[in-house]
Amino acid sequence: MIKNLIILKIGGSVVTDKKNDNEKINRKNLKRISQEIARARNEKNFALVIVHGVGPFGHKLAKKFNLHKGYSNNSQIAALSEIYSSLRKLNTEVESCLKEQKINTVSFKQSSAWLLENKRLVHADLSIIKRYLDFDIVPILHGDVLMDTKLGFSVLSGDQIVTYLAKKLNAQKVIIGTDVDGVFSNDPKLEKDVRLIKTFSVKNKKDLNLTGSTATDVTGGMKGKIGELIELSKLGIESEIINIVKPNILKRSLCGHRGLGTIIKSN
Amino acid sequence: MIKNLIILKIGGSVVTDKKNDNEKINRKNLKRISQEIARARNEKNFALVIVHGVGPFGHKLAKKFNLHKGYSNNSQIAALSEIYSSLRKLNTEVESCLKEQKINTVSFKQSSAWLLENKRLVHADLSIIKRYLDFDIVPILHGDVLMDTKLGFSVLSGDQIVTYLAKKLNAQKVIIGTDVDGVFSNDPKLEKDVRLIKTFSVKNKKDLNLTGSTATDVTGGMKGKIGELIELSKLGIESEIINIVKPNILKRSLCGHRGLGTIIKSN
Repeated sequence: MIKNLIILKIGGSVVTDKKNDNEKINRKNLKRISQEIARARNEKNFALVIVHGVGPFGHKLAKKFNLHKGYSNNSQIAALSEIYSSLRKLNTEVESCLKEQKINTVSFKQSSAWLLENKRLVHADLSIIKRYLDFDIVPILHGDVLMDTKLGFSVLSGDQIVTYLAKKLNAQKVIIGTDVDGVFSNDPKLEKDVRLIKTFSVKNKKDLNLTGSTATDVTGGMKGKIGELIELSKLGIESEIINIVKPNILKRSLCGHRGLGTIIKSN
Repeated sequence: MIKNLIILKIGGSVVTDKKNDNEKINRKNLKRISQEIARARNEKNFALVIVHGVGPFGHKLAKKFNLHKGYSNNSQIAALSEIYSSLRKLNTEVESCLKEQKINTVSFKQSSAWLLENKRLVHADLSIIKRYLDFDIVPILHGDVLMDTKLGFSVLSGDQIVTYLAKKLNAQKVIIGTDVDGVFSNDPKLEKDVRLIKTFSVKNKKDLNLTGSTATDVTGGMKGKIGELIELSKLGIESEIINIVKPNILKRSLCGHRGLGTIIKSN
């Protein structure tokens, strides 16, 4: 068992410019986030796994060639090969920003290690990730296209990875870093009359009009996110959705502060 | 079973400038080699796995911090994280040259998927590689530092990967691409009185004064290479060591020509 393990999701909308649908990395965000992680790790002792979203680096090609729906024709194969290069480009930049802050990282390539079965992670041995964590190395993962025993291939979302790791590694805490302050009663990017929900649990799920993300997202946007986190809360693992585009929120969250965004718990 | 599978090793001395011990990629070699592979694949139907050496991108740090000897102290951890970035830099370039020739590739990261036990590959599931091959995608692998169940971590040489894959995937042929014409009775870079051995088998092993490579190489140089290939020949899988720095040799070898360098067979 890994002690004091935090799983941190860095949203695709944070690391990239998701709105423009171009493959543009947000280095400014990445640099500050890396600095906050380094400062938190100097202050407090915790093991860390980072999972980042991929924004246009993945979703654009995946959507165009229906990679998330599985194999249907040979024109998808070149796109599949292309998407791996595109994801690697982003992942290399994320890792490089963390390394500049003297964080020892390893890019863990789940598409080389794990298999999907009908879009769900079923064959995913975590013993290698555990070994890296034992050496206090921070594994970095991301949404990806994986081989699928039923569909040929399909998409594994960063959110699915977060839930799986948190569950199997018995994480102490899950932090979902986004560009919004938490979960709102309506989409704050589209409507004015919205309120931030401080605590979110299974019982108030139906009261909410949770809309998916407005940007191109083959993995379900906010709806998908909440669904995965509720599953997690049922196992007693608490998550918090916070705004990591605003300075210092992430650092405080990593250091143990709660109530900085929306907490997701079972009741 | 994968039909007509060729495992191609591209030596570290071919893809990098091994002599200078600097992290310099040989793009000229890589471009021509990629073109020859593309032309061969247009002419003939075969499945392909590429394993490339890493030259100074791996050996330098590995040697400096004794990574090939396993975990001994915490100063190795930053070096371990660093070596992964360095290897990725090289691997990205190799892949990019192949992609420019419209070859559909996937970079397979064995350190995310496989475990060593006392420097030997024992936990290495190949089902994902097989799936990529089924889609006619070319997996690219390379020498790497892997987690080791006994030593913490250790080095897996490209030559070990070649033997393992050839054995487990029942390869039709193994091509070892180097910057020399084959196996010599003495090191052709150091001595004048040498002869090229056209066929090499277990029985004439003792007659030879096989010296290791003169450059920094933590994985055994030519000696290590031959040892691994002899093991392979015992299983009936033939290898040929050829000079892929000279134009057109690789293309001819991929298309089925024999006798272009040194053939390694069991008797």
